[in-house]
Amino acid sequence: MLTKILTQGPIPRVEIARRTGLSQAAVTKAVAPLIETGFVTDAPAGDDGQLGIGRPVSPLTVVASSASVIGVKVTPTSLIGVTTDLTAGILNVRHDALDSTDPEAVIDRLADHVKALISALKTGTAMAGPLVGIGIAVSGDVDATHGVVRDSPLMGWRGVPVAELLGKRVRVPILVSNDVRALTVAEHWFGAGVNADSFAVVTIGSGIGCGLYINGEVVSGAYGVSGELGHLPLAPGELVCTCGRRGCVETVASSDAILARTREQTGRPGLDLAGAVELAHDGNLQAREAFDRAGEVIGAALAAMVNLVGPELVMIAGEGVAEYDLYEERMRRAFAEHAFGAAGDCRLTLRSHTFDDWARGAAATVIRSYVRGEPPLQR
Amino acid sequence: MLTKILTQGPIPRVEIARRTGLSQAAVTKAVAPLIETGFVTDAPAGDDGQLGIGRPVSPLTVVASSASVIGVKVTPTSLIGVTTDLTAGILNVRHDALDSTDPEAVIDRLADHVKALISALKTGTAMAGPLVGIGIAVSGDVDATHGVVRDSPLMGWRGVPVAELLGKRVRVPILVSNDVRALTVAEHWFGAGVNADSFAVVTIGSGIGCGLYINGEVVSGAYGVSGELGHLPLAPGELVCTCGRRGCVETVASSDAILARTREQTGRPGLDLAGAVELAHDGNLQAREAFDRAGEVIGAALAAMVNLVGPELVMIAGEGVAEYDLYEERMRRAFAEHAFGAAGDCRLTLRSHTFDDWARGAAATVIRSYVRGEPPLQR
Ligand SMILES: [Zn+2]
Ligand SMILES: [Zn+2]
Repeated sequence: MLTKILTQGPIPRVEIARRTGLSQAAVTKAVAPLIETGFVTDAPAGDDGQLGIGRPVSPLTVVASSASVIGVKVTPTSLIGVTTDLTAGILNVRHDALDSTDPEAVIDRLADHVKALISALKTGTAMAGPLVGIGIAVSGDVDATHGVVRDSPLMGWRGVPVAELLGKRVRVPILVSNDVRALTVAEHWFGAGVNADSFAVVTIGSGIGCGLYINGEVVSGAYGVSGELGHLPLAPGELVCTCGRRGCVETVASSDAILARTREQTGRPGLDLAGAVELAHDGNLQAREAFDRAGEVIGAALAAMVNLVGPELVMIAGEGVAEYDLYEERMRRAFAEHAFGAAGDCRLTLRSHTFDDWARGAAATVIRSYVRGEPPLQR
Repeated sequence: MLTKILTQGPIPRVEIARRTGLSQAAVTKAVAPLIETGFVTDAPAGDDGQLGIGRPVSPLTVVASSASVIGVKVTPTSLIGVTTDLTAGILNVRHDALDSTDPEAVIDRLADHVKALISALKTGTAMAGPLVGIGIAVSGDVDATHGVVRDSPLMGWRGVPVAELLGKRVRVPILVSNDVRALTVAEHWFGAGVNADSFAVVTIGSGIGCGLYINGEVVSGAYGVSGELGHLPLAPGELVCTCGRRGCVETVASSDAILARTREQTGRPGLDLAGAVELAHDGNLQAREAFDRAGEVIGAALAAMVNLVGPELVMIAGEGVAEYDLYEERMRRAFAEHAFGAAGDCRLTLRSHTFDDWARGAAATVIRSYVRGEPPLQR
C-alpha cells in the first residue's frame, strides 16, 4: 500500500483500490495507520492540518520528511555517500577518497564517512526525519541477506561481512547490495522505470553490468548472481577476462580493455583513458578501432539480453557515458543486427548519470526494505 | 486461490492461509463457491459425499474431472493433439500427418483434428468434464492476445490469425501460444517447476528455444519475444541462420546444422539425422566433431542465460534428447567455463520428453487461463 503511494503518488484512494483490486473501504482502513504515524498524508499542500467541514478528500502522498536514509557506493578509490528523504530526494552529498582497498581499512573509512553523513543530517536541515537505515552498494556478488560481499573482483574482496563489521561501529540497520541491482531498484521506484512493466539498466565503464526488472520485481538470481552482461562469452575466445574466464564482453568493452587496446594499437603505453578518448575524438584510427570493437560487442550483448528477456526499455547508464558517442553508432548497428524480431522494438535510451546516482541507488534499497517492513528494517 | 489448490493440492485451508497471507476465514469464504460449483472438493478420496458428524476436514483438492481441455502442437509435418482433465492429466492422444504448411490447408486439417479429439472426449470416457477451451502451440513469435502467429520461420507463416480462422470452424474458446512458452507453463503448473522459485526450460532440436519462469510468472517479453536462446550471437559470424542473422546459436546447434556439418565433413550428402547420430555413436570423428561443436555453443548459450537471469534450475528437453549423450559432456564443460560465480550452481537436468508433452503444454495454457478467469475463457 505504502509502496503504491510512494511510487505512484499523489494517488487517490479510489485509484489504489482499482489498481490493487481491494475495496475502497479496505484501502481506507489500510491507509489510516500510515496517516496516523505520519508516513502518508491526504492533506492538500499548504494545508494547516485543521479538519474543516466540507474539506475535499485529497490524493494520498508520502510525507518525504517522515524518514531519512543513507546510501554509500564503495569503489576502489572512493566512498560516495548521500542522505535522502523517504522519496529518495537527496539531502546531503559526501565524497571521500580511499587509499587502500584492504577490507578493514575500507570499513574504518566507511564508518567515519557514515558518521559524517549522520552529522550532516542532524545539523543540515530541520526537516530530516529519523534515520532508518544505511545502504551500502558494492560491485560483484553480494549476499544481501547476510550483508556479505561474497566476491568483488573490482575491490579484490572475497567473503567480507560488511554489515557485521560496519554494524559494530554504527548502530543503524545496514543493507548491503550489488551496486547495479541497487541502481535498478532506484530506477524502478523513483526513476524512468516507474511506468515500465519491464526494463533493463545497463552500466558501462570499468565493468559492464545489467539490472533487470521483470514480472513485477528486480531479478536477483536464485544463487545471488544475475545481470552479468559483462561476462557473456561474446568476445574472441583468446582474450582472458579479469574474472579468469575466456571471451567475456569485458575483455574488449570495459574501459580498461579499451585503454589497453588503444595503447597497444597506437604504441603509446603511457596513455590514460582521457587521452584515449581525446585521440578517438580527434579521429585517430587506432583509438577509434578500440571503441568500435567495444561498441560491436556491447551491441551484441544487448541483443542477447533482449532476445532472452524482452524488456520494454533499456537504459544505458554509467561512467562510460562521456565516451558514449564513440561507440554508440557501432553498438546500435550490432544491436539491430542481432536483436530477434519484435524484441528489437525495445528502446535503447541513454540515462545521464552521476556517481551520486549509485549512492542514491543504495539509499533506494533501504527505502524499499523499510516501506515493505522487511528485516532488518521492520517498521 | 484455485491456482494454489491446483498446483499445490491437496492442501489444507490453513496452509493456503499461511501462503497467501489471508485469514483462514477469508480462505474458507473464497473456497466455498469453488466447492459449490464442483471445481474443488474437501471430501476424502472415496468419500460418499454424506456429511457426518465429526467428519474431519480434509485438504482441498481440485476435481480433475470438473473440466476438460484440448491441446494441439502444430509442426510442419504433423498435428499432435491431446485431451486432458483440469489437472493436465492426458485422456486421449491423436497424431495426424500434414502434407502442406499452407496456412489454409493446415487450419482445415487442424479443425478436423480438433473435432476428432472432441468426439474422443465424448465417447471415450464418462468422466470427462465440459470442454472449456482449445490451446494451439506453434513455434515462433506468437501474439497470444489476438491469437495470431506473427512470424514462424519453421512453419513459414507470417501474420496467420489462427484463433480467428479455427474459431470459424470450431465453436470453443481458442488460445494460441508460442510452443516453448506453453511447455514452460506446463512445467510451472504441473511439472518439475512447481517447487522452483525460478527455472528455465531449454528445448533442443530442429530449433533451440528457452522458456523462463522468473519472479512468479513465465517471462513473455514486452514485445512478445523472449527466450530466443537459439538466436544469441554466440557462433562464428560467417554462418548465416535460417532467421537471416549471422552467428546465431542455431547455425551450429540445430539438428539441421549438425546434419549439414556431418554431411559436409564426411562427404556423404545423402545422410539423414538418424544416420549422423549412428555415425557419431560408432565413433566417426567427423560426425562427432559436428556434435562437439553444437555442444560447445549450447553450453556457452546456457551460461549466457544463467549469467543474465540466474534461474534455480535448468531443464533440458526436446526432440534432440536422443542425441543428448553426443553433446552433453562438451556442453557441460562449456557451461562450467562460462557460468559466472554462483550462477553456475544452477542444476542442468535432462527432462525426458515426448512430442505429446508439447500438446500437453498447449492444454496447460488453457487450464491456466481458465482457472484465472482470463478471456476468452472467463468462468
Ligand atoms: Zn569475465
Ligand atoms: Zn537466428
